[in-house]
Amino acid sequence: MIPKDHPRYRSLVAREQLARCAREGIVAPEGLAAHGRGEAFDYLLGEKTTESAALAERTAAAMLLAARHAVISVNGNTAALAAAEIAALQRASGADVEVNLFHRTQERIERITRLLTEHGVRVLTGTPERIVPLSHDRALSLPEGIGDADVVLVPLEDGDRCAALREMGKAVITVDLNPLSRTARTASLTIVDEVTRAIPAIAAACASLEPGEGERLIASLDNTYLLRAAIDEMRERLAHALE
Amino acid sequence: MIPKDHPRYRSLVAREQLARCAREGIVAPEGLAAHGRGEAFDYLLGEKTTESAALAERTAAAMLLAARHAVISVNGNTAALAAAEIAALQRASGADVEVNLFHRTQERIERITRLLTEHGVRVLTGTPERIVPLSHDRALSLPEGIGDADVVLVPLEDGDRCAALREMGKAVITVDLNPLSRTARTASLTIVDEVTRAIPAIAAACASLEPGEGERLIASLDNTYLLRAAIDEMRERLAHALE
Repeated sequence: MIPKDHPRYRSLVAREQLARCAREGIVAPEGLAAHGRGEAFDYLLGEKTTESAALAERTAAAMLLAARHAVISVNGNTAALAAAEIAALQRASGADVEVNLFHRTQERIERITRLLTEHGVRVLTGTPERIVPLSHDRALSLPEGIGDADVVLVPLEDGDRCAALREMGKAVITVDLNPLSRTARTASLTIVDEVTRAIPAIAAACASLEPGEGERLIASLDNTYLLRAAIDEMRERLAHALE
Repeated sequence: MIPKDHPRYRSLVAREQLARCAREGIVAPEGLAAHGRGEAFDYLLGEKTTESAALAERTAAAMLLAARHAVISVNGNTAALAAAEIAALQRASGADVEVNLFHRTQERIERITRLLTEHGVRVLTGTPERIVPLSHDRALSLPEGIGDADVVLVPLEDGDRCAALREMGKAVITVDLNPLSRTARTASLTIVDEVTRAIPAIAAACASLEPGEGERLIASLDNTYLLRAAIDEMRERLAHALE
């Protein structure tokens, strides 16, 4: 048991949750390594939502609400960490939710769908087709889901898939703690924040945008500024790390 | 298959190797997450041995050679990534090798011992006792191994264990890519480098120290300087990351 007053309680609980889901086959071993990379960058952010991340989250809410058809693409790590948060964001934004895996097996799709459903997510079902320009089963998506979407939120995504969705002309919002990753640099909007902080923040913003605020946020979106701000936070923290 | 000319070939091969060892039970799920944290910091170092890390590796060689009894403590991640490198370092330094696990089961001890033996490591055997001041099975060590050592090399170690070994009066050398970790800040000497680069570098230094160089290196050891140098490298790389 991790004591609740441990300074890194949330981070340690998330790691335990993910290791448990790995033992159950919901999270791939590669997903655990990816989570570790995120932990390192979150540590450099002080494990909190920065001002620029909060701006990105508000902009993400504006984009989801303004979309013709918004879809949230959920993988194993996101389901393991934030199933309830995804359900709340779906309610707040009206977005569809589709399960989409890098390490895809029918069994993992079913386990993750079950986990999401148990937490109140309405998961799109249907017959996946090779829609996204990627090799192998990573191309598989639902024609009536990601195939039809104009805005896709893909938390914790890999660079190839992010780029392929952009090439299809979609607006891509990602949540990625590494501001240097190809995903972070390829997405239309990158939220450099931990997923269980980011998803509730987007949901809260969906409910609190002022009239006209959404249009202003979308018009002034500058992803390079957001990445630069995250990097500056990390540099500043490193500078004082040994004090 | 990862193409050999991929700019991050070594890093991606290491990750695959670790995921495979996780499926075989050699690496714990938590070990995969820890590896991911290391990858993030290595990325910030440019995935190369810095000048200050090379100095730390030379100092580590001096400490191992000057020890009354040097022991290399090997866990699952180290065995999975660097079994052959540990064998070479054992030959170069004359150090004993003991298997010591955070997530300890008899089965994992046996698997890891077998993996090391297959790669030419002579692994200490015996009856472990609760020697190290830690709770539960993490205290278990060999009286004739870590129990008797004056210098212990513990690559990829956790902060509690590093501190406990220091409290026992031992000189602790660690390999840790996170210069901010408790392990890095508690060890007598911290090598901020990737383990498959660090271990061969220490072995090479064992064979090439000039007369008197070892004494000089040990006398001028300044671990805070080494950590600060690693942090400065990371800050510099972050500053130019989006160019």
